[in-house]
Amino acid sequence: MKHILKGWLTDNSITTDNKTDKFLLLESAGKMSLEDILQKMFEANTGLQPETLRHVVELYHRIVKDAILGGMQVNTGLFYAVAKFVGVVEGGKWNPEKNSIYVSLTQGQEMREEIAQTGVSILGTKADVMYILETEDRKSGRKDGSATAGRNLFVRGAMLKVAGEDPSVGITLTSSNDAKVTKLEDDLITINKPSELTLLLPAELAEGEYTLTITTQYSRGKSPLLKEPRSVSTTVYIGGKPDEGGSGKIDLSDDS
Amino acid sequence: MKHILKGWLTDNSITTDNKTDKFLLLESAGKMSLEDILQKMFEANTGLQPETLRHVVELYHRIVKDAILGGMQVNTGLFYAVAKFVGVVEGGKWNPEKNSIYVSLTQGQEMREEIAQTGVSILGTKADVMYILETEDRKSGRKDGSATAGRNLFVRGAMLKVAGEDPSVGITLTSSNDAKVTKLEDDLITINKPSELTLLLPAELAEGEYTLTITTQYSRGKSPLLKEPRSVSTTVYIGGKPDEGGSGKIDLSDDS
Repeated sequence: MKHILKGWLTDNSITTDNKTDKFLLLESAGKMSLEDILQKMFEANTGLQPETLRHVVELYHRIVKDAILGGMQVNTGLFYAVAKFVGVVEGGKWNPEKNSIYVSLTQGQEMREEIAQTGVSILGTKADVMYILETEDRKSGRKDGSATAGRNLFVRGAMLKVAGEDPSVGITLTSSNDAKVTKLEDDLITINKPSELTLLLPAELAEGEYTLTITTQYSRGKSPLLKEPRSVSTTVYIGGKPDEGGSGKIDLSDDS
Repeated sequence: MKHILKGWLTDNSITTDNKTDKFLLLESAGKMSLEDILQKMFEANTGLQPETLRHVVELYHRIVKDAILGGMQVNTGLFYAVAKFVGVVEGGKWNPEKNSIYVSLTQGQEMREEIAQTGVSILGTKADVMYILETEDRKSGRKDGSATAGRNLFVRGAMLKVAGEDPSVGITLTSSNDAKVTKLEDDLITINKPSELTLLLPAELAEGEYTLTITTQYSRGKSPLLKEPRSVSTTVYIGGKPDEGGSGKIDLSDDS
């Protein structure tokens, strides 16, 4: 096996009727950004300057983006990508309130060939693992990290209930642009259950990428609350507010 | 608007109760492969040789794949990617028959910023458009193009029913590796409806990427059959047969 992915068995928070059924949850090895990738590329000693590597990768990204948003089906080997339109188009008119564009990405052949050379190592069972399974933007129904300011966001997972008196307990949104941290006021946590939170996102949040972090002392064990709070995070992207248009304005509609 | 995506309004094959609701279907601008991308990169006059561009892109792909399959969450800006385990793990044992690894890909911030600069042009209404909405591997439930030799594949869309006497009518699978074409025998088309086909894929198909093409003279108009057959295609990936293991063997399991 060329690669090994490690995972923890954890309670299946969806179907609780079968106690021997477990989810396998990835033991994360950390995060990697484009900067980290470029650094690693430089360390591979290609003989090329960092600026050259950056330029080539940016060119690659630009060509892929231009092709996808020009309506092409792109197959890089690493992934397939194609633009799709979301939502039913009522009365033949594009409505940014209900319709949007997204890019559907799927693992490509190169990635699948690499997966075929990947083994799984089960590290053991972890009771009461705190994790985020998915988020869902109440407005669009999208589960890909999309979120809308002033609208509800569902967060599903396990052990997410916000509880405890530690000052760090609560829900924060950290902007990727300026690292500004917005803490949600308690009344914006509309539903607060271990397996699901409903969060009303502040209407004044600017468009962009955020890290959503849930910090809690909640525990299902014998002790009522954990001494040390713990956290999980996920990335969400706040899109344009519906009344401001955002993506997908109509430019032309010659038929309906 | 920096980009314009074009779409055709077409009948909503799912909810037929509201006749004014339409889907907007992308007017494809064609396909782009890694070779095409590399060619476009060369034409951008970076001053770099084609071999250098190829080397840098391959290095980029390799680093991204190694990171994802080493358990990292990768954010290139173009996309987020993280490996996930599919299926409930019964009795604490990884079972390649029921469990698999896949890489979940989501559009990244760079892509979203580009989408925000993309307009939509509605070209008009097309009645009786033939299209594939999705495929579903009956074995794994995956809708990302995964398929299994010897198992059923659902193909959902519109106007897909295979009908007509033209020799080209039928369903073919073309291997991306050697361009070998396999035509499905009629009895392997288990369900043959305009909105859904169920295809039993030949057990002898080798693992790899295939183009699935549906060719038919079926029409819903006044004429019973089209004079000229028409086709739609989608990419499917035949995974390892369950008994051969494929991805995700157990390497270590110290707990159950």
